[in-house]
Order: sequence, then structure tokens, then C-alpha cells
Amino acid sequence: MASFASMKIDELNVLENSLNDRLDKFKRMNLNLNMSRGVPCTEQLDIASDMLNLINKDSSFKAEDGVDCRSYGDLAGIPEAVRLFAGMFEVGLNEIIIGGNSSLNLMYDTMLRAMYFEVVGSEKPWSKNEKVKFICPVPGYDRHFSICEGLGIEMITVGMTPDGPDVDEIEKLVADDDSIKGIWCVPKYSNPEGIIYSDETVTRLAAMKTMASDFRIFWDNAYAFHSLSDESKQLKNILSECKKAGNPNRVFIFGSTSKITFAGAGVSILASSEENIKLIKKQISIQTISFDKINQLRHVKYLKNIENVKDIMKKHAAIIKPKFDAVCDIFEKELSGKEIASWIKPNGGYFMSFNALDGCAKKIVAMAKEAGISMTPAGATYPYGNDPHDRNIRIAPTYPPLDELKTAIEVFCICVQIVSIWKHKKDNGGIKC
Amino acid sequence: MASFASMKIDELNVLENSLNDRLDKFKRMNLNLNMSRGVPCTEQLDIASDMLNLINKDSSFKAEDGVDCRSYGDLAGIPEAVRLFAGMFEVGLNEIIIGGNSSLNLMYDTMLRAMYFEVVGSEKPWSKNEKVKFICPVPGYDRHFSICEGLGIEMITVGMTPDGPDVDEIEKLVADDDSIKGIWCVPKYSNPEGIIYSDETVTRLAAMKTMASDFRIFWDNAYAFHSLSDESKQLKNILSECKKAGNPNRVFIFGSTSKITFAGAGVSILASSEENIKLIKKQISIQTISFDKINQLRHVKYLKNIENVKDIMKKHAAIIKPKFDAVCDIFEKELSGKEIASWIKPNGGYFMSFNALDGCAKKIVAMAKEAGISMTPAGATYPYGNDPHDRNIRIAPTYPPLDELKTAIEVFCICVQIVSIWKHKKDNGGIKC
Repeated sequence: MASFASMKIDELNVLENSLNDRLDKFKRMNLNLNMSRGVPCTEQLDIASDMLNLINKDSSFKAEDGVDCRSYGDLAGIPEAVRLFAGMFEVGLNEIIIGGNSSLNLMYDTMLRAMYFEVVGSEKPWSKNEKVKFICPVPGYDRHFSICEGLGIEMITVGMTPDGPDVDEIEKLVADDDSIKGIWCVPKYSNPEGIIYSDETVTRLAAMKTMASDFRIFWDNAYAFHSLSDESKQLKNILSECKKAGNPNRVFIFGSTSKITFAGAGVSILASSEENIKLIKKQISIQTISFDKINQLRHVKYLKNIENVKDIMKKHAAIIKPKFDAVCDIFEKELSGKEIASWIKPNGGYFMSFNALDGCAKKIVAMAKEAGISMTPAGATYPYGNDPHDRNIRIAPTYPPLDELKTAIEVFCICVQIVSIWKHKKDNGGIKC
Repeated sequence: MASFASMKIDELNVLENSLNDRLDKFKRMNLNLNMSRGVPCTEQLDIASDMLNLINKDSSFKAEDGVDCRSYGDLAGIPEAVRLFAGMFEVGLNEIIIGGNSSLNLMYDTMLRAMYFEVVGSEKPWSKNEKVKFICPVPGYDRHFSICEGLGIEMITVGMTPDGPDVDEIEKLVADDDSIKGIWCVPKYSNPEGIIYSDETVTRLAAMKTMASDFRIFWDNAYAFHSLSDESKQLKNILSECKKAGNPNRVFIFGSTSKITFAGAGVSILASSEENIKLIKKQISIQTISFDKINQLRHVKYLKNIENVKDIMKKHAAIIKPKFDAVCDIFEKELSGKEIASWIKPNGGYFMSFNALDGCAKKIVAMAKEAGISMTPAGATYPYGNDPHDRNIRIAPTYPPLDELKTAIEVFCICVQIVSIWKHKKDNGGIKC
């Protein structure tokens, strides 16, 4: 197919008419398809349902340390859960806390504690500074941005590269401004681009000179085990790198089983240096007596060990890889060669990042919505919902059944083309837009 | 038995020697008995273990609204849990949020939100005031005090009466000082005295004039269903009273199933006016996507309805009432008539409050500790651990097996008597102490 830029207005008009005919057909189907969030599908949730049989009234409820999991105790987690997740996230047994069902909750609380109290090395609570700024690689995860916005933290964007966020830019920013207190990172299969940070990126983030002595990396390793193929690039161990660089307390690592077991009833983790974890334990001992240890025990019995986790994740990949493949195939078929869009096919994670022509994303998402397809709002991948190029759209292919997904993506591609035609016509003196 | 005050020094010496003989016998047994915390015993936890069989791989995981409980969604709780707990805590369906496994966590977060953000009606975050003060009825619950201390809130104590906290005193305090932002209350079977607030107390707390327009009652109704006998005095509905008085947003109600199902794996609730709940939902939607709905579903299937909850609580009472009775019997036998102690036998809850002679509590607890009996630290029932009379000791009879409990209380009573003899001897020119 020809590049839209090379086509004459008449040709574009003909194409637009045929695209509108196709869109109208879909509109008459009264579709109601949702691909707005990164949610596991029912078949994925079914994988872990056996877990619910592993703790029952005849079980032993004792953790290895003798604590009854039905009762209070073991604030940082039962020993067998600590061991399993410390292994999975490559940290020491005193460098991890096993939380409740939500790693987002751990991230939010960690940020709020830093704002209200302190982190190790703070001279005062972050919120006592005139300004607190956080670096947000873009496109990124809207819930991270909401935490910053909600707590009054100013967001500074830096671009992503195939090796992770633009470290040259980050190094410059943090060297000069002590109000920059940290950075959000999704280091493996980043949301939404699916990028794995390179070894060099990890090392430089760990080692860079920061003007703020209490600078923190919020390392949301949400997709640590979420590969779509067998050959998975390793992510360098950030905590080790921080220690090597003499910045042992720089990183807070977050993870969960939300996309390993149950999105709403999994187990979350917070890992960091022993010194950081010690302070956090002290802080949260006022907030709660312990997290749900029955669910921790259930998870340990089900997940067993890292090899088994990897086997479980292969079952997930078998369900969702065909969905990612289908999206890419349709993109290829509908959009390739037209020079109106680009996308990245990831090797893992939950998302694909799609870039339309500048100024087109909002119109595309609105048009798809009218045709019954809910996408993540355009702009959501940028702080304050503001994509300066209005081009990035996050694709979340995991939840819809394959046939619905295919329909949704076809409709989406039709919208992409129509809006792109409008733009070309406008740029070339046409009327619509 | 004669009052110690009426005994001569010689008589006291003889008694002290015989008490020391008894204590030495116990010391030689190398006891290690813990009655420091309000923890359900194993037999109590076993009552609810059937609950763990109610959700298994063959269950439907759909909530009434069609949401898959294994996945994200229903931030405020699944509809059937909302309905059950709204009924149990006598609030409307839009006046409650079903949380995770810890009501302490809900209390802490609610206080921190008030300090960092706002509550409905605040002009600014509480922490932006020069001072924030909270009224703490004493004796009270140490974890409430820790929240205040941790967040930098000054605590003002008021005494307890058989009808609840001294409302005359409270009314005076709050009318005059707009830095007093709230009060902690455990309105039913108060911790540690087991007092149920009278109707008048509830109404006056709801209606009193407060100088702070954003005054809040933190109503920790932890023992709403935890009666030890069939005839249970009703607690007046505080939310209704607040509404009647024109202060609909004054109260935050907290509750949980920690002592109905599992202390560490239950379900918690936060109830309040619709306007308060609306703001809180907005605030926590940034903190988490949803709480553990599988555990909510499990609880709804197990608890079923209020009548069934009451039946379950009768099973708890059957296990722990004999323990409360045993403690009272031993107190009666060992201490009655000696005018060295007073105690309250509660009709529900988890604690008994014990008052020794002034200046004796710390010595008694230390002596018991030496004999292998861990009590709640003396002073823990007061803010900053500071009981100005050094007399109150919280007794937590539920956890130890009955025979161990009897031994522990006997040892405790021996310590009470020895320390009381020291005090009398000192007051009368004796030497020891």
C-alpha cells in the first residue's frame, strides 16, 4: 500500500469513503468491546484457580516459624513467602516485605511515607520542600502519574529509547536539581512499550550522581516473569548495582502476583536495602499488624519455586501471545507502508504502544469509542493526560476474547486511517478535520 | 480477708513471706505464658476454618454485579459484601467501604489522609495547622495512641465512666479549641474496660458543639458482635445520631471480622456519611484498584447474615467466657477484701481492666515477667505509655489455654499482693520498696 503522504486528495477521498463504509458496517453491529486496561482474561485467571483448594479446613495453618497464619504476626511475611519472593526478585531475606493484594498500594504508601515522614537519608519529609519533582519516562503508566499528581509531586518527562529511559537526559536533570527526588521505572516489558532496560541503563541509574541525597528509584517490576517467548532477556539486578555504586538505599523494588495468580487477590512485594526495609517495617508496624498470611501460604503452596512460576507463566503466554500476534498481524495488514503509524511488538508484559501521526490520537480514540471500542484514553500514557504530540495510544490486548480483539483492532485501524486521511487532507489544503 | 491497710507491719511481713514462697514455686516451673495481646485462641480460629472450603476451583467467582472476584474492580467491595456489612453496622449501601484484612490499616490511612489531604469541611490539611490534637479516653487502646504519636498528633486524655468517656469534659474541651480535630472511641466493650457507651453518651458526642468544623469521631467498633452473654446492651447508632444533630460527616466507623473469622485474614470496613465515603473512594482510587474480593466472597458465603454472625459469636463466647470467668474467680479469691485492686468484669470484648494501687502497676508487671508471665506493659493503656497513676493493667484472657491462664493469673495475683505489701510497708515506715 502506498504512503498516504504520496497520495492525491482524490485518491484519499476514495479511500476515506471505502473506510467509512467499513466503519458503518461495524457501527451497525452495536459493538461494546473494552480494551482499555491491562487485565488478565478469564482463561488466565482459571490457570491459578487450583490454588484456592490448597488451603482448606484440614490444612495446617502454621507458617514455618510456628505462627498461625489465621492470626496476627509476621508483619514482613511468613518465612516461606519471604524466601520464595526474595528468590524471585533476587534480593536477600532481610530485603523484602510481603504485602497484601496490591503492589500499587505499596507504591502509594511508600511515596506518601516519603512525603509525610522521611526516607533513609532525608533531612526532612519530602513535602516540607518547596517543590518535589519526579522523573516520569514517557510513554508510561497512568497510575504512577496519578500517585504523583495526587500527592502534589511535579512530574518531569523524559523520553524512552529502546534501552529504557533516556539516561543522558536523566543524568543531567538529577545532577542539577535537588528537588528531583526520584524516578518511576517499569524496567521489564515497560508499560506501554514493552521495553527491557539495558544493562547499561540499569547500571547508570544506580550509579548516577544525584543532587538530592535521598533520591529514590521506584522500580515497578510488574512484569518480571511475563515473557511471551522462551528466550527472555535478563534484567540486571538494580539493588546489586545500587550497592556496587555506593547507593545501597536508592531503589524501592515493587512486584506482585497480580498477573501470575489473581489480579485482585494476589500477593505484593516491596524489596529494598536492609536499611530501607528496617525503617519501613518500623513505619508500617503502626499502620497494620500483619498482611493476609493465609493468602501468602496459599501462594507459596501453589507457586512452589521459581521454575514452577516460569512454567505457570508459559501457560499465560500460550493464552495471550496469540492476541499480541493477532494485533500485530492486523496492524501489518491494515497500516503497513502507509506511513501513518508505528508500533512496537513486545516480547512480554501486557501492552503495546501505538503511535499515530501527531495530533491524531484523541480523534482516533474518540472515533473508535463511537463505534463501540473502548481504548485507553489518548494521553493516558503521559503525566496529566497530556501527550504533547497527541499521538500515543496504549493497546491492551489481553482481556478480550481473540475474535472480539480482532474485530476491535480492525475497527481501530479503520479509525486510524480515516483520521490520518483527514490530517493529510488538511495539511494539503483539503477541507475535513 | 482483711484490708492490707488495716494490717500491722508484722502481719504484712508474714503474708509477704508466704506469698514469696508461692511465687518461688512458680518460678521453679520456668513458665513462659503470654497474655499480652488480644488474640483469639486456636479453638476460636478453628470455628471459621470451614470458610476456607467455600471458595475453591469449582466455585463461581462472579460477584452479584458480574465482576470476577479474582480480577480488578469493585473498589468499595462486592455488592453482597456491602449489603451484609452495611446491615451489620447499620449504615446505608453508599455509606460503607469493604477493605482488606486490617481495620487498623483503614484507621491509619484515614488519619493520614486527614493530615495530608483533607476531610469533608476542612479548610486545609490537618497537618498544616500549628497543632493537631486528639482526645483519647483512658484507659484506651495502645494502637490508637501509636497512630497519633506516629503522625505527630498531640493526645489529650479524658477519663472513662461506666457510661463511656467523660462527655462533660469532652464538651468543654472541643468547644474551646479548634486544634482538637477528633476523638478515638471504642464504643462497645471498650478496650480495655469493656464498657458500652450509653445512649446519652452517643447522642452527646454526635451533637456537641465543636470549635473545629472538621472534627471527627474515630469510632472503632471492633467488638460490635462480641458479647459474652445472651443479653447484650444495644449500642446507639452513631451515624444516625450525627445526622439528626446536623453533623452528618462527623463520624468514621471502623469494624472488622478479625475476631469473628480470622485475626489475620478477615475483612475490614469503613462506614461514614455518603459524602465522606464519596471523598474517600476518590482518594483511595489512587492508592489501589481494589481490595481482595475473593476473601470478601468467602466471608459472605460463610457469614451469610446477621443472625448467623450472632450464632458464630456464641461459639466464640462459649470458648472465651470460661476464661473471663476464671480470671474473675481468681481475682475474687486472691484479692477480694484486701483493698489493693479493682477490676471490671465485662460482658463482651477481649479485655479486662485491672487497677492496682497507685504506683504499683509497673512493679507488678515486671515481677510477673520475671516469673514467666508476659502481661501488656503497664502504661500501654495510656498515651505515650504514661499512666499518671501507674495503676492500670490490661488483662487479655482469650489466647492462653484455660489451665495456663489460671496459672498466669494466680502468679499475677501473687505479684499484685507482694507489691501492694511493699507499698503499705513503705507508706507506714517499712523498709522494702
